[in-house]
Amino acid sequence: MTTTLDTDVCVVGAGFAGLTAALRLHQARRSVVVLEAAERLGGRTYTERLADGTVVERGGAWLGPGQDRAYALAAEMGVMTYPTWGRGEHVLVRDGIVRRYRGALPPGVGPLQLAGLGIAMARLDRLAKRVPLEAPWEAARARRWDAQTVQSWLDRNTLPGIGRTLLAQVLHDIFTSDLAEVSLLHALFLIHSHQNLNHLTTIEGGAQQDRLVGGTGAVLGGIHARLGDAVHLTTPVLRIAQVSDGVTVVSAACTVRARRVVVAVPAATAGRIVYDPPLPIGRAQLLQRMPLGSIWKIAVVYDAPWWRDDGFSGQSLDPGSPLPLTLDASGPTTPPGILNLFASGAAARFLTGVSREERRCAAIQALTHRFGPKAEHVRDYVEQDWSAEPWIAGGMVSRFGPGVLTTFGPMLRPPVGRIHWAGTETAIITHGGIDGAIRSGERVADEIARAEES
Amino acid sequence: MTTTLDTDVCVVGAGFAGLTAALRLHQARRSVVVLEAAERLGGRTYTERLADGTVVERGGAWLGPGQDRAYALAAEMGVMTYPTWGRGEHVLVRDGIVRRYRGALPPGVGPLQLAGLGIAMARLDRLAKRVPLEAPWEAARARRWDAQTVQSWLDRNTLPGIGRTLLAQVLHDIFTSDLAEVSLLHALFLIHSHQNLNHLTTIEGGAQQDRLVGGTGAVLGGIHARLGDAVHLTTPVLRIAQVSDGVTVVSAACTVRARRVVVAVPAATAGRIVYDPPLPIGRAQLLQRMPLGSIWKIAVVYDAPWWRDDGFSGQSLDPGSPLPLTLDASGPTTPPGILNLFASGAAARFLTGVSREERRCAAIQALTHRFGPKAEHVRDYVEQDWSAEPWIAGGMVSRFGPGVLTTFGPMLRPPVGRIHWAGTETAIITHGGIDGAIRSGERVADEIARAEES
Repeated sequence: MTTTLDTDVCVVGAGFAGLTAALRLHQARRSVVVLEAAERLGGRTYTERLADGTVVERGGAWLGPGQDRAYALAAEMGVMTYPTWGRGEHVLVRDGIVRRYRGALPPGVGPLQLAGLGIAMARLDRLAKRVPLEAPWEAARARRWDAQTVQSWLDRNTLPGIGRTLLAQVLHDIFTSDLAEVSLLHALFLIHSHQNLNHLTTIEGGAQQDRLVGGTGAVLGGIHARLGDAVHLTTPVLRIAQVSDGVTVVSAACTVRARRVVVAVPAATAGRIVYDPPLPIGRAQLLQRMPLGSIWKIAVVYDAPWWRDDGFSGQSLDPGSPLPLTLDASGPTTPPGILNLFASGAAARFLTGVSREERRCAAIQALTHRFGPKAEHVRDYVEQDWSAEPWIAGGMVSRFGPGVLTTFGPMLRPPVGRIHWAGTETAIITHGGIDGAIRSGERVADEIARAEES
Repeated sequence: MTTTLDTDVCVVGAGFAGLTAALRLHQARRSVVVLEAAERLGGRTYTERLADGTVVERGGAWLGPGQDRAYALAAEMGVMTYPTWGRGEHVLVRDGIVRRYRGALPPGVGPLQLAGLGIAMARLDRLAKRVPLEAPWEAARARRWDAQTVQSWLDRNTLPGIGRTLLAQVLHDIFTSDLAEVSLLHALFLIHSHQNLNHLTTIEGGAQQDRLVGGTGAVLGGIHARLGDAVHLTTPVLRIAQVSDGVTVVSAACTVRARRVVVAVPAATAGRIVYDPPLPIGRAQLLQRMPLGSIWKIAVVYDAPWWRDDGFSGQSLDPGSPLPLTLDASGPTTPPGILNLFASGAAARFLTGVSREERRCAAIQALTHRFGPKAEHVRDYVEQDWSAEPWIAGGMVSRFGPGVLTTFGPMLRPPVGRIHWAGTETAIITHGGIDGAIRSGERVADEIARAEES
């Protein structure tokens, strides 16, 4: 026997997009039911509290200036932010040699290379500004940019060498995919949506400036407390049927009858739901054309943030390594100290193929090589393979391959009858980020309010 | 209550790939169960017999030299072939003006344009020859080609004008997708897999040379007769579990326990099945990265093939029209006469948005414009929207977007434990065609025989 629930709005997915939509609808005095396939809240964010109380973010974690809706939601839930540690020297590894540097760009990069990198970044930023955020497909050169991959653009617009390598690594880590898979138009849109490349990749004043005290889970916990038993975990949605005056959302455990439904899961996951009647062809094909990349996020916990005392920021880049990028991910108070390591794309799939012990070794070796032997004295090790996460099966932002935005982009946001689409990929501002997910949740809540009025 | 069936091999999908695999396994004295989601056999082929007995192919239909396995299978099933009608003048419409011509390339195309087109085709053929069919990702320039789209290659290697327009239309009709969505490496691989561009697009001596008497359905009917009640229609597979000594294939109606399973459905459809344990990440991500395009195939049936008497071949091209391409699709004996019209990509999605009556009008207007007023005297009208086909939701060949073949291509054919992968997209020769589907079915049957021996 399955239960039948009646509600105003059914929300599919309990990440930031879905929970924000549910919260705003609840605050507008609408009844909501949230169905989440996984056993936990959070979607592509995932806060774990270790036995000793240490907060580890296994997924999305950072906030920065311009992400107003994320800061506002955190404040509303009584969650404070704290600055990411960014003082001290960064590390760049080239050909195995560790170089320490301060500021945005490493020395040891020859002046011509540096100039080339700066020119390429400025050019990307300049092109990005010409992509209208509401409708990237309406850029004057949209078709030309969408027919190119980021890789082919780099091949033609930058000289081989460390400048290209650094820029490629940064873009690769954003899309967690081979850059040959990513449309130049999508990259330009994402860059514009986050102001510019420098903003996207900077700690202080940029997109990695702040973190949440208690983690993203503290914000979601606050929303959950307000929604109470409206949130159903471990309830994968199988089917969404539109009937004359509403929708029926079917899972193995329950059937929800609602006036409207919000789908707030990644596109590839939304594509596994059966829609009745079938989605318009363009919308259905769009869901088939937004795969996620691959990413591992590893947290190594130490008794103290010893690298700070040794003059390091904790930020490092070793292009070509299986774990190219590290960042200081410690909490607002120390001890403990936490370092994050990231692997994306092919490097992430490589890590999936080795044992946990080998990954742990690789992580600690990388940290030892970059920051010294103190990295060997590990207190805790936490690893997250986003491709192994049920119901997500990848990370971080869904990528639009070439040709997809110009052809199918206009179908990204418009509702299909009583189905409304949320998720960070539908966001105009901070597309791909937590703030974008929150904005998309608030947009659908407004969209539903307007639709119900008319 | 669901039934449990025990068998040697379970085959998922009853298109040419799945049914050929099942036939060859059956002939090798293995028991098989075939589960097909749809209410009919055929997959991306679909033979309809009208009330008066006229055979109409709603899907894949043509065969040509080099497609030895398709000819052999037809002969084995006692199905004859007959030549496609190709005599008479073709039609090219430019700026609304109808021009008749003979031979491969239309006059009225200026000599410089013609030379440009010839050079571009020759260049594509030359590059295609350098793509190893067994492993396109091992071409010396694989990464460079896979980082480019067919559209960006055309933009840079052909001059604007009728030459580029014709070449783009031909390639567009092959991939049924915007060319910005298609990897140059995939296009080169497909061209090489069908010998060359000229072969791919030619009637006599080329890939459209022959058709089957009684249609593709006559061949499949022959296989079905041999397999008998091993074939289960309207049985969508929900889940494939690998257990220690076999597989369990679960549908709503029955559970099949087998030693091995063959998955012979399009990748996007295979991606909707739940795999337990989950597929290796690269294989799972590949299934998310092979969407189908959009195609309408329309058949207009006349009392006689009147266009032949008027000196037309029935072949026409009107680039930019919603129905750019037509071909003579009459049976081995006339009357009746049949003309096919095709729309792909954005044109196909446009047709999906208008009424059946509007599509019928557009088709007949197109034929009248190109071949004269006799086109108005229609006997029957049959239309097929492949994007509306349940369990396929697109057509014809799944496309590899840029970056996909080099990154995920090596996972295309190797079995995952006891799961074997068939389908025309896994074919080395005639990749994307009926012959490729048949070859893939025969390959998995061999693969299983070898695996069971060892």
